[in-house]
Amino acid sequence: MNKAYQSLLEYSRDLYALRSAVGVLSWDQETMMPPKGGEGRARSMAALSRVMHQRFSDPRLLAALEACAADGTSLSEEERAVVRELRRDRDKTVKVPESLAAEIAETVSLSQRVWAEARPKNDTAAFNPWLEKVITLRRREAECLGYAETPYDALLENYEPGARTSYLRKLLHDLKAELVPLLGRLLDAQGKGKPALEGKLFPVADQRTFNRKILMAMGFDLDAGRLDESAHPFTEGSHPEDVRLTTRYSDHDLMSALFSTLHEGGHGIYEQGFQSRFYGTPMAEAVSLGVHESQSRLWENQVGRSRDFWSCYYPDLQKTFPAQLGSLDLNGFLRAINRVQPSLIRVEADEVTYNLHIVLRFELETALFGGELEAKDLESAWNEGMRRNLGVVPESPSVGYMQDVHWSCGLLGYFPTYTLGNLRAAQLFDSAQKAMPALKTDIRSGAFGALKDWLNVQVHQSGRRYDGDGLMEKVTGSKTEAAPFLAYLRAKYSDLYGITL
Amino acid sequence: MNKAYQSLLEYSRDLYALRSAVGVLSWDQETMMPPKGGEGRARSMAALSRVMHQRFSDPRLLAALEACAADGTSLSEEERAVVRELRRDRDKTVKVPESLAAEIAETVSLSQRVWAEARPKNDTAAFNPWLEKVITLRRREAECLGYAETPYDALLENYEPGARTSYLRKLLHDLKAELVPLLGRLLDAQGKGKPALEGKLFPVADQRTFNRKILMAMGFDLDAGRLDESAHPFTEGSHPEDVRLTTRYSDHDLMSALFSTLHEGGHGIYEQGFQSRFYGTPMAEAVSLGVHESQSRLWENQVGRSRDFWSCYYPDLQKTFPAQLGSLDLNGFLRAINRVQPSLIRVEADEVTYNLHIVLRFELETALFGGELEAKDLESAWNEGMRRNLGVVPESPSVGYMQDVHWSCGLLGYFPTYTLGNLRAAQLFDSAQKAMPALKTDIRSGAFGALKDWLNVQVHQSGRRYDGDGLMEKVTGSKTEAAPFLAYLRAKYSDLYGITL
Repeated sequence: MNKAYQSLLEYSRDLYALRSAVGVLSWDQETMMPPKGGEGRARSMAALSRVMHQRFSDPRLLAALEACAADGTSLSEEERAVVRELRRDRDKTVKVPESLAAEIAETVSLSQRVWAEARPKNDTAAFNPWLEKVITLRRREAECLGYAETPYDALLENYEPGARTSYLRKLLHDLKAELVPLLGRLLDAQGKGKPALEGKLFPVADQRTFNRKILMAMGFDLDAGRLDESAHPFTEGSHPEDVRLTTRYSDHDLMSALFSTLHEGGHGIYEQGFQSRFYGTPMAEAVSLGVHESQSRLWENQVGRSRDFWSCYYPDLQKTFPAQLGSLDLNGFLRAINRVQPSLIRVEADEVTYNLHIVLRFELETALFGGELEAKDLESAWNEGMRRNLGVVPESPSVGYMQDVHWSCGLLGYFPTYTLGNLRAAQLFDSAQKAMPALKTDIRSGAFGALKDWLNVQVHQSGRRYDGDGLMEKVTGSKTEAAPFLAYLRAKYSDLYGITL
Repeated sequence: MNKAYQSLLEYSRDLYALRSAVGVLSWDQETMMPPKGGEGRARSMAALSRVMHQRFSDPRLLAALEACAADGTSLSEEERAVVRELRRDRDKTVKVPESLAAEIAETVSLSQRVWAEARPKNDTAAFNPWLEKVITLRRREAECLGYAETPYDALLENYEPGARTSYLRKLLHDLKAELVPLLGRLLDAQGKGKPALEGKLFPVADQRTFNRKILMAMGFDLDAGRLDESAHPFTEGSHPEDVRLTTRYSDHDLMSALFSTLHEGGHGIYEQGFQSRFYGTPMAEAVSLGVHESQSRLWENQVGRSRDFWSCYYPDLQKTFPAQLGSLDLNGFLRAINRVQPSLIRVEADEVTYNLHIVLRFELETALFGGELEAKDLESAWNEGMRRNLGVVPESPSVGYMQDVHWSCGLLGYFPTYTLGNLRAAQLFDSAQKAMPALKTDIRSGAFGALKDWLNVQVHQSGRRYDGDGLMEKVTGSKTEAAPFLAYLRAKYSDLYGITL
């Protein structure tokens, strides 16, 4: 092996080993840390983040990167991807002066606290100035980072390398044009009855057993990971052989834990799916949030909300909860878990309305970032957008523009990756079906091995070799597009309600 | 505040923040990490250990230390202790060349694996050469570190700063001379009946509830800590506001979890007891292992095996396990939990025989380290020592000289701290009783606040201001001595068996 590359690898493995430590500490903070541990933990995280910044700024890293780039001919495609992506990460870190990075870190930490206090009180006057501050800092950061067409592109680059504002604008606009009328037809078809699962109690202990069974069936390796509980479900892939998922249980809500487990299980299978020879390099890391979300959504929705899946598992679920589900047939259950309902809160939204929430957030945050909208006018713009896209208007900012933590944390450019994930999930599943004619039959018999293997080979083992659209082209023949997602929704709901959409 | 000291403080807080991260990762490794996570974790630990070594070797740390030492007059006693102890830690790290440190780390890691495989097979031929290697490396380390009288002093310094081989030899020799005849008299007094708790089952769920109640009654703050389970109980005080204890449960053994919880609870109360203004400095850190062990033993033994404690808690324990304990009276229970029994395994030993195990280990490891004994002759020396000290002889090395992990890990000089802890616990409790005439009455009513406060003020809040014997002199008026421990044993067993010892 090339000597410069060898020394780069050692550097990389050390960086990833430190990042792993940060990952475990983050997971611990959400799941295990006692209440008073926060202050000490913040110090540890800050100390590690300074170590990481120093490592990225080390001239020896740059020298190794440049030596590899100069001597690139002896490297494989995958090794060249390692060099290119480490260079990208290094440049992103180094381009932002440490003073600005520290100011951003401090401001978003304070701003998040202000949000947490202001939200329940609908205290827009307290929150708005902090939102303005955060946006101003992110604009300065974007100028340091540089961008292709517009400053917002620099934000997108953080979560979805290669994505452009102009491209997303058209994609989301076209998607909205299809979803709004589709939503109307589905509301008509489904009628106004009470949701079938409402008002029933599902003991948490039984839910835990069932969820664990599903997670193992999916192929998540519990010897190289865990399933725990936290206030907000998440996946922490600190290392491909130590991937930790969380879900949350409520005895009032069977679906919340179940679909969180399927969702995080999809993320987890991605994190466990990298090639071991590339552990500790960008070739053993997810492409982007939008590709990550495609993996979680595919298991949650294309698999987990399908008739095929429940043909296999519903009898088992009924046996687990006979009093609650004994008299609800499969079709009734499928309608319940696929029910559409325009609502105020994004995280509770169904597959159809979810993306309309994202469209609005994208419209508003590009306007805020571009200076066309001020924080003080955000509330009315939000309410108007909700009325237009979803036909519902929040009574107060706490369930309106202040509902999500993201903006207070400075996570601008993040929301669109959720919709990219939804679209890519459908597009990838479509290709999987074409590649594996027996896929639906497999799922009906609870056999997910072929699907998991296909995703491993097609998606996971590429690490960061391609960007999001590059990967989609390689696997599906096209960049990310809305058509497979819309076709998937139409087929599902046509079947569920015996109509033609 | 003095500027040099201020900059030293920042350096120190950063070091301790990184050490906290290591602490959480270590805890996680024993309690939460999935089986396949080990390799990645080892890389993270190694990366962090290199970062720590670099920090200690940073010339800026030395400059700050020297500036503080030069300008020492403006510093308080406690601040001077911070400077002195940081200097000690720094020197200890820097004196050992990185290459030797790395060789030791690698050798003990391999040697530990060899031990784990060799022990169940009694494969002394595989283990002995590794033990020789480890000893040779520790000798080289001792030469780098320097020592007061004899190279073994350098080892002691790692765990019990200020302790000397000559001093321990006399202390342990005198102790043995008293314990051997005492053991004989106790064995006569207690007779040969079957232990009262043997053969009974105690459901683990009920044990968990009872243990948690005891831990809270002791004053361990569960908002600044946790109680979990692991194969070997331990305490990880990654930060004074995040202190994690473990215990282990077996439904065959009520006592194991209970006394582990009291023991680790004592360690935990120490870790939670530092002054918050010194967090992130040696003034918020334990003096030594021998002082740490005094805190765990005091709660486990002086409190937890006493008639006063169980006068309060035994009715509650009987209510929790009515079928198992209903017909055993308080006196019978106290005899059961204080039963002496010469046995092969140190960690299962009672208060009297425990120290005889330590005496033997000290005799043997000083001989090994001094070159008077070779690893190949260790087995017979061990067996002869066991016969002499305890009257029992192991059938095989797995329950003989290969029983503990310590030597394979290179932990030479560590065992004596266990006995120092036992002696100091009795000595400190004696002083506590003199300082608080109501102490026994408090304990009989389950009120431990005054004892905890006294330990906080007398021991914990001193951080590393004094060394072990310095602390004992300050609190009790004498260096560590055996008399209070022997008096404590005699009083307890005289009461239990109605005899005069």
